[in-house]
Amino acid sequence: MNEKLFTVRLSQDEKAVEILDQTLLPNTIKYLRLEKAEDIYEAIFKLRVRGAPAIGVAAGFGMYVLAQQIPDEDYDVMLSCMERAGAYLNSSRPTAVNLSFAVKRMLKVVYDHTGLIKPELLPLLRVECMAIYNEDRAMCRAISENGLTLVKSGDGILTHCNAGALAATEYGTGLGTLLLGKELGYEFKVYSDETRPLLQGARLTSFELDHAGIDVTLVCDNAASLLMKQGKINTCFVGCDRVAANGDTANKIGTRSVAINAKYHGIPFYVFCPSSTIDFGCKSGDDIVIEERNGDEIKQLFFEKPSAPDGVKCFNPAFDVTDAELITAIITERGIARYPYTESLAKLFLR
Amino acid sequence: MNEKLFTVRLSQDEKAVEILDQTLLPNTIKYLRLEKAEDIYEAIFKLRVRGAPAIGVAAGFGMYVLAQQIPDEDYDVMLSCMERAGAYLNSSRPTAVNLSFAVKRMLKVVYDHTGLIKPELLPLLRVECMAIYNEDRAMCRAISENGLTLVKSGDGILTHCNAGALAATEYGTGLGTLLLGKELGYEFKVYSDETRPLLQGARLTSFELDHAGIDVTLVCDNAASLLMKQGKINTCFVGCDRVAANGDTANKIGTRSVAINAKYHGIPFYVFCPSSTIDFGCKSGDDIVIEERNGDEIKQLFFEKPSAPDGVKCFNPAFDVTDAELITAIITERGIARYPYTESLAKLFLR
Repeated sequence: MNEKLFTVRLSQDEKAVEILDQTLLPNTIKYLRLEKAEDIYEAIFKLRVRGAPAIGVAAGFGMYVLAQQIPDEDYDVMLSCMERAGAYLNSSRPTAVNLSFAVKRMLKVVYDHTGLIKPELLPLLRVECMAIYNEDRAMCRAISENGLTLVKSGDGILTHCNAGALAATEYGTGLGTLLLGKELGYEFKVYSDETRPLLQGARLTSFELDHAGIDVTLVCDNAASLLMKQGKINTCFVGCDRVAANGDTANKIGTRSVAINAKYHGIPFYVFCPSSTIDFGCKSGDDIVIEERNGDEIKQLFFEKPSAPDGVKCFNPAFDVTDAELITAIITERGIARYPYTESLAKLFLR
Repeated sequence: MNEKLFTVRLSQDEKAVEILDQTLLPNTIKYLRLEKAEDIYEAIFKLRVRGAPAIGVAAGFGMYVLAQQIPDEDYDVMLSCMERAGAYLNSSRPTAVNLSFAVKRMLKVVYDHTGLIKPELLPLLRVECMAIYNEDRAMCRAISENGLTLVKSGDGILTHCNAGALAATEYGTGLGTLLLGKELGYEFKVYSDETRPLLQGARLTSFELDHAGIDVTLVCDNAASLLMKQGKINTCFVGCDRVAANGDTANKIGTRSVAINAKYHGIPFYVFCPSSTIDFGCKSGDDIVIEERNGDEIKQLFFEKPSAPDGVKCFNPAFDVTDAELITAIITERGIARYPYTESLAKLFLR
């Protein structure tokens, strides 16, 4: 087995954030040491580190690293420098919730301890960024352990897009069960949808499972139905971008089709979901707006030559919504919810 | 509207086969004039002309063009030259049934008229190659007319892969209804699956529909299910590679998933099928062997850089089989068959 990858961590000397440069995947494995605010900003902005949880962890570590560099011990200087650093990091990807959440948590440490000087504040900031990191690891671990109760060694598993360790810490969500299972001696036979148009299944999932020594086969999204018909798939594993209170789930475009095919073939379809992704303010999938992206991602990105004439229109939705009734179970860090989800999700989280 | 494309035809002076060079699509529209045996061979071998019916027509015209060049009037010379030309053209794509079928028909003209000299044989060969051409046109036209009874102007139509005029003459099969309908004033809103891994939907279907002035939108295969959910699709149109006696249909990989999604959403799913594609010797889809192609078509072909690491395995089936129960109707040149197909297809063809 290859050396275990890490997505983001605090360097051993605690003076830098270390990340795996995901823009070079799957062809090159290279880690970056980020010390300056500009380097951390650039890494997030350029998607060298990506995935909402991973970005949050990077920002937490980043705030701690930058705090050490403040050239004055005075509280007021600490406060204004930290606020400036937070606003700067925050602006690298303004829509990522976990990013602003992590920055806010680090700033709250400063706000909550008015008058403390740098040597007193630094240990508190260290505790907070390690907490952000460890909470993510614990969440991924709990989801992965819960997922393991749903599979057995030897299972054939279909995945769509990437919900692996590369988007979080250590295990990830959707792929965590596979990575943890591998460590515990389970042998899975994984089929990874390439996931058009952005190819996350090819570039990230097949890469990270292969690297972890898991038996993975790359397929075009079009092959999923045949695999199911041939009896090669025991379960489907996907992550999610937003889960409504009734269980309707937004995830990468194509997820809905996998779920419909799974239902037709009588195959369980599982959604892996950190609690932060459940939006109880959203009643059903009808309330979820689908982001439409530029058609050049279909016709041009990754290709040597455009695949279709200039004049041809494209429709390029980034997500679709899978109806709750198609989902066999939703696996969270708190436990496993089953249909009907309005009740089961509320029971897990709104007690 | 643009000038109507043609896939293959006899040149006006009847001294050459003229084809649209499909290897240059969708970026360049260029016709080739093929006079020599080597040119015709190369065009078929390199897929400049492709699609079983189109290859057959090209071979028929080719045999007639080459017959005119034979430098002797004697029957025995004609016979041996024609046999040599036939064997040569045949070897350009040895598995294409229509190719060998067309060559055989042209040779049969020579065999059936022992002793005739060149000026007597040429008109008979001309009649035969025009018959091959006209039979294909009539078949496409009849399928297209039958298909038109199933749609109305304004319909949203999803297609997968390419079953258009580029694979046949004039109208094609699966797209013929759209092309004929356009001529008759129907307005369709067509969504073309890009059709991974070989992108026939992007490169050919979106190109030829756009060229014909039909409103076409290119989508990733992953978007089909969302389009159905959004109510944008009234019917699905696909061609086929082989239909079993019970109606199970082999077609481009991904077709099965479109059909399952259509069933889930209550949308009709239509297969367009020239009678030559129905294999009554094949009882069901279980008897159809699925061709597996090289994984580099997934990871590498068309891409600037490989999408996944070298070591990752690929599974790249070229076709899948759609269960007969998922197919609303099979549209042939003889009429429209409906489930159960063992009876309805036999009634149309085995009277």
